[in-house]
Amino acid sequence: MPNISLRDRYLAFSPIRKLTPYAEAAKKRGVKIFHLNIGQPDIASPQIFLDKVKEFNQKTVAYEKSDGSEELKSSLLKYYRGLGISLTTEDLLVTTGGSEALMWLFFILFEPGQECLTFEPTYTNYVTFAELAGVNLRPITTFLETNFTLPSIEQINRAITKKTRAIIVTNPNNPTGAVYSRNLLEELVELCLKRDIFIIADETYREFIYGGTKAVPLLTFKKAEQIVVLADSLSKRYSLCGARLGCMVSKNQPVMTTANKIAQARLASPTIEQYAASFLDQVPESYFREVNQEYLKRRDFLISELKKIPDVKVSRPDGAFYLIAQLPVVDAEDFCRFMLEEFADRKETVMLAPAEGFYLTPGMGVNQVRIAYVLKRPDLKRAVELIALGLLKYKNEFIRTNPGT
Amino acid sequence: MPNISLRDRYLAFSPIRKLTPYAEAAKKRGVKIFHLNIGQPDIASPQIFLDKVKEFNQKTVAYEKSDGSEELKSSLLKYYRGLGISLTTEDLLVTTGGSEALMWLFFILFEPGQECLTFEPTYTNYVTFAELAGVNLRPITTFLETNFTLPSIEQINRAITKKTRAIIVTNPNNPTGAVYSRNLLEELVELCLKRDIFIIADETYREFIYGGTKAVPLLTFKKAEQIVVLADSLSKRYSLCGARLGCMVSKNQPVMTTANKIAQARLASPTIEQYAASFLDQVPESYFREVNQEYLKRRDFLISELKKIPDVKVSRPDGAFYLIAQLPVVDAEDFCRFMLEEFADRKETVMLAPAEGFYLTPGMGVNQVRIAYVLKRPDLKRAVELIALGLLKYKNEFIRTNPGT
Repeated sequence: MPNISLRDRYLAFSPIRKLTPYAEAAKKRGVKIFHLNIGQPDIASPQIFLDKVKEFNQKTVAYEKSDGSEELKSSLLKYYRGLGISLTTEDLLVTTGGSEALMWLFFILFEPGQECLTFEPTYTNYVTFAELAGVNLRPITTFLETNFTLPSIEQINRAITKKTRAIIVTNPNNPTGAVYSRNLLEELVELCLKRDIFIIADETYREFIYGGTKAVPLLTFKKAEQIVVLADSLSKRYSLCGARLGCMVSKNQPVMTTANKIAQARLASPTIEQYAASFLDQVPESYFREVNQEYLKRRDFLISELKKIPDVKVSRPDGAFYLIAQLPVVDAEDFCRFMLEEFADRKETVMLAPAEGFYLTPGMGVNQVRIAYVLKRPDLKRAVELIALGLLKYKNEFIRTNPGT
Repeated sequence: MPNISLRDRYLAFSPIRKLTPYAEAAKKRGVKIFHLNIGQPDIASPQIFLDKVKEFNQKTVAYEKSDGSEELKSSLLKYYRGLGISLTTEDLLVTTGGSEALMWLFFILFEPGQECLTFEPTYTNYVTFAELAGVNLRPITTFLETNFTLPSIEQINRAITKKTRAIIVTNPNNPTGAVYSRNLLEELVELCLKRDIFIIADETYREFIYGGTKAVPLLTFKKAEQIVVLADSLSKRYSLCGARLGCMVSKNQPVMTTANKIAQARLASPTIEQYAASFLDQVPESYFREVNQEYLKRRDFLISELKKIPDVKVSRPDGAFYLIAQLPVVDAEDFCRFMLEEFADRKETVMLAPAEGFYLTPGMGVNQVRIAYVLKRPDLKRAVELIALGLLKYKNEFIRTNPGT
């Protein structure tokens, strides 16, 4: 039997999904699971999208254009105009989810062996995409104690080497929920211009902002136009994770030319979703306001509930719908597995994402979990209750099986 | 401005789609174009799929599982059982089109710098996928004069080097329409087992077979189970190109494990299509019979019409819906461009795919085109008439502008 590629050794299962087999087994035992592990909002998709799917009336579900349907592209141009970003149709390419845009960028921007910087904890799938392209993803650590704010520009500057060709800026951040200020971004742009590196802007959670701050799109910095490449997604903005639509946006023409070559090779993004999504510019502002209000309430509620559990520390996110919590355990992954495999209270338990997988530095985040607050408040309340009960039971089990310690 | 990756130099625009800007311009001038360039069938998608799309009634279009919905997976297992291939759910992973499975296989099976063999003319997108993974795609040439049959096993054996880790077998073949016999495949399997290399089976056109032959799925060779990886697609089988659904199938567990890691990183394939496609096992045999009958008639009609044009040579495909035609021109790409940019008869013209892009050996296929017979016979008749008229005008233009030759 021939060997498969050594690349496999450097690929990991997603920390968000790796415990899924335990969850499946629990479900088979009749246990109900509250999913706080995955960013799958329970918010309804916009009605206009659902209606238009039903109205799709072509007899043949044919290929769309490789770079996306004209209608969806103009709808997206309109959306970006609303953000103060003026684009032509060549600056934008529809992708099969933001994931596809992200994956391609590692091939488009980097030679194998070059480096990409990211702030850790980081979106874990960057790691897989970087590995596939032979790119060395290097972390700049941010800390729960300082609410995952960015380190100083001097520190970021020092992390840039001759091999660095880009830095990923995930704003609002997944998994930390941190939001970066205009001033900070301005400084970052200046730095990247000076050091001649690209910025990969992942702004998937742009609309999810709480409190006074605003998520400033990096493409609004005129002078950064040639170094910013945006990987965007409709998944969270419109609660359309399963539609698999996103886009790559850049004024950098060589970047878009290469992207179009790859786009042609994979043929096209899904036709029916593109048709329905081209009407999303009709979704009223109030949709976002209501969704935001809901998440704000969930965040505040979740934080106050979690703080009631002894020795649990939480960050206070300003955006997205994730937070990192530090638990009074040695190994959070083992605790997460325990919750699925050994624990249940009245046939209910919780699935969490161990945070270690979001760090690139070995040993970081081993006692942390990422919590996605994508459930209604009564469910969140019960979920936190289950975490508290689970922690107690986990501690008792530990004492029982390790009597000497 | 930072440089982009040197990889760009080795990526080409798809020969099927590269002339699209000329086609767009022609359409804007009011010219109707008969598209023989792209494998987009005009056959209606199965009604049950279209109906089920309308019946999708979840309020949130949520992520599906990374490896595909349970319903679609069992529907596909049933389909393969019908082909005599018995699979478990772990042997199959739903992908976003067959393209996604093909792309991943270059990362899963090869180290950068290793070689993959393919018969040329070949499916051009293999080239892009191989380049992204740093894999050297090496051709074994097949010829129009011998109807693109495979060379002898000895010749294939000689093409395998120490660096070869896999060979792609596209059966029925795109772009040639050649179908390989059971005996030939058996010999190929023996060779690959002996030389310890994988077979990437691309059997997208399995259902499109004319005359006595049958397309034998490589996974039906029991002894080859560990070396065969199938990249399959629903696009052509059910005329669902725009649904972007396919799958990767293998009994080789390490291959599937790596594939699942990549699948998790890109999250999921489209939800609504997976829901609707899970009912495709209800499509009756008669659907395929009727479609086949239609393509058989088109093939025979197209060949007889093309043969009426002086100095045009055509292959006789036994499957798929493509043929390669040799034209009495020096540069078929220039002729294809001419047809879109300079030619029109009663405001109508034809778009063809220059075949040079389907060859890896420089200089091969420069006077050939690939023709997809995906149009109704009256349209095919008119399209061939336009080719004939175009060839005449192209020749006269050439004589006019090159009076000395």
